[in-house]
Amino acid sequence: MFIDRLVKQIKDKKSNVVVGLDPNLELMPEAFKNKFFSEIGKNLEGAGEIILSFNKIIIDHLWDIVPAVKPQIAFYEQYGLQGMKAYIDTCKYAREKGLLVIGDVKRGDIGTTSKAYSNAHLGAVNIGFKNFEAFPADAITTNPYLGDDCLKEFMDDIEYRDKGMFVLIKTSNPTSGQLQDLDVNGSKIYEIVARMVYQWSLKTIGNCGYSSVGGVVAATHPIQAIQLRKMMPKAYFLVPGYGAQGGSAKDIVSCFNEDGFGALINSSRDIIYAYKKEGGNYDENHIGQSARRVTQSMQKSINEAIDNRGK
Amino acid sequence: MFIDRLVKQIKDKKSNVVVGLDPNLELMPEAFKNKFFSEIGKNLEGAGEIILSFNKIIIDHLWDIVPAVKPQIAFYEQYGLQGMKAYIDTCKYAREKGLLVIGDVKRGDIGTTSKAYSNAHLGAVNIGFKNFEAFPADAITTNPYLGDDCLKEFMDDIEYRDKGMFVLIKTSNPTSGQLQDLDVNGSKIYEIVARMVYQWSLKTIGNCGYSSVGGVVAATHPIQAIQLRKMMPKAYFLVPGYGAQGGSAKDIVSCFNEDGFGALINSSRDIIYAYKKEGGNYDENHIGQSARRVTQSMQKSINEAIDNRGK
Repeated sequence: MFIDRLVKQIKDKKSNVVVGLDPNLELMPEAFKNKFFSEIGKNLEGAGEIILSFNKIIIDHLWDIVPAVKPQIAFYEQYGLQGMKAYIDTCKYAREKGLLVIGDVKRGDIGTTSKAYSNAHLGAVNIGFKNFEAFPADAITTNPYLGDDCLKEFMDDIEYRDKGMFVLIKTSNPTSGQLQDLDVNGSKIYEIVARMVYQWSLKTIGNCGYSSVGGVVAATHPIQAIQLRKMMPKAYFLVPGYGAQGGSAKDIVSCFNEDGFGALINSSRDIIYAYKKEGGNYDENHIGQSARRVTQSMQKSINEAIDNRGK
Repeated sequence: MFIDRLVKQIKDKKSNVVVGLDPNLELMPEAFKNKFFSEIGKNLEGAGEIILSFNKIIIDHLWDIVPAVKPQIAFYEQYGLQGMKAYIDTCKYAREKGLLVIGDVKRGDIGTTSKAYSNAHLGAVNIGFKNFEAFPADAITTNPYLGDDCLKEFMDDIEYRDKGMFVLIKTSNPTSGQLQDLDVNGSKIYEIVARMVYQWSLKTIGNCGYSSVGGVVAATHPIQAIQLRKMMPKAYFLVPGYGAQGGSAKDIVSCFNEDGFGALINSSRDIIYAYKKEGGNYDENHIGQSARRVTQSMQKSINEAIDNRGK
């Protein structure tokens, strides 16, 4: 099951950091980009190659110290087919390096349409008795606004193809509370979603004791995290909002269970563009080494915060 | 503005039917598919060409009697890059024929990520002082679960590039009520979303009196449609759920204002696979002519229901 593969990676690498691969050309070094622009052209093809090459640097420097990467598909989608190709090639490269891939796609629709999204990102389409995988990921993020109809369509691929899903419960953005915090007879919307997700999660508990269906619970809401951790003890949390978005190591401690498992902490910009904060010549080695240093330092802060909790 | 272009199309063509282009290989004639499979191969490339060619038949037979088409991107996404290419080429072909394109993508994320989705589907990315459009649509559907942070990122493209957006308010699926109908101090969640959407819609009112920001309000919930119509009189409704999903012409009347405008009624399977219900030799002409007959018949039913309301 996906969750057993994830927990094994977390144990083997002693890491619960997931690296967000959110390509932003504006944050990449000029000299690095110009090499591709002059070879391929200042166009979508050039942009696609830059993104893939940048991601490979990050993956080459981090594959042995993190369990998973999380490419955010929107940043690829804006570069059209060439961006989507970079997304696919990034996923494949990460998996070749032994990493799990969490496609941050936040898809969700009515029944038959969600099934098509599941085919696209977790499963396969069948053409002439042969299966074809479109966008290869081990797990994806999904949106619960349409209810169980939507979520259930991902379950077949989760159960029979060993995939995973993290459903949006409480997001990291400033207006997340606008709908998610509304009170319905004493329960917040995010609690109602949590219960809905937990029902699905109980169908996919792995040998590790956790489920292949988890939730997105942001680092920027530590109080809610405490409560959600209690409500869904066997669900893994994918935790955005650490670092650049304001969440600290102390904030995310409550996302972990007593056993030290239960949460994957995501950081994107702070890791992949770490080179900008460190002096140096901005070459590929510097980009990769800075990302590695920041990831190790983040892991250390998380471990210390976990060790010190309750003290 | 998008909304003025839409209302002009609706007036010129005397039609408020939007055709859902939801490709499903299983519902297409074997002989039609085999032509491409034997030429190109039983693979994603073959599937992509089948989808584009099928859509062109539909568009060729309907472009003069409908204002817009609505490709559901999930059905393309499952065929990977080749499916996404078919999506792009379908959008381009429809626009060449003078149709508006509503990309049914249901995207939505935190701020910077939603901006990337907006670049992808409504706007453009800038590379070396040149703009590149990824997935060309005139309007898209979006998901409100993350709140205003998400929706506001689409507004620049809506205002400055004459685009439009339909935010999910009340969807057509059986479990839509699970979250959307929950009661918060006397207001349902879908009403709260409607008020949120309406605030944005008031910023983009066109000369026609309607707004380029509208909502998705399903045909399967006529009571809620009456109420939402009153709550957001200047917002256009994109109405799924007609026909195959159970909504009738009578059900959707309440989505229209007294002026006979305010709603676009979507039908997908019932139109594009109409050939299956009519006898014939299943050739391209038959596929297109059946789709045209069903569209005209649907428009007639809608017009009669509007004329008879209140009687």
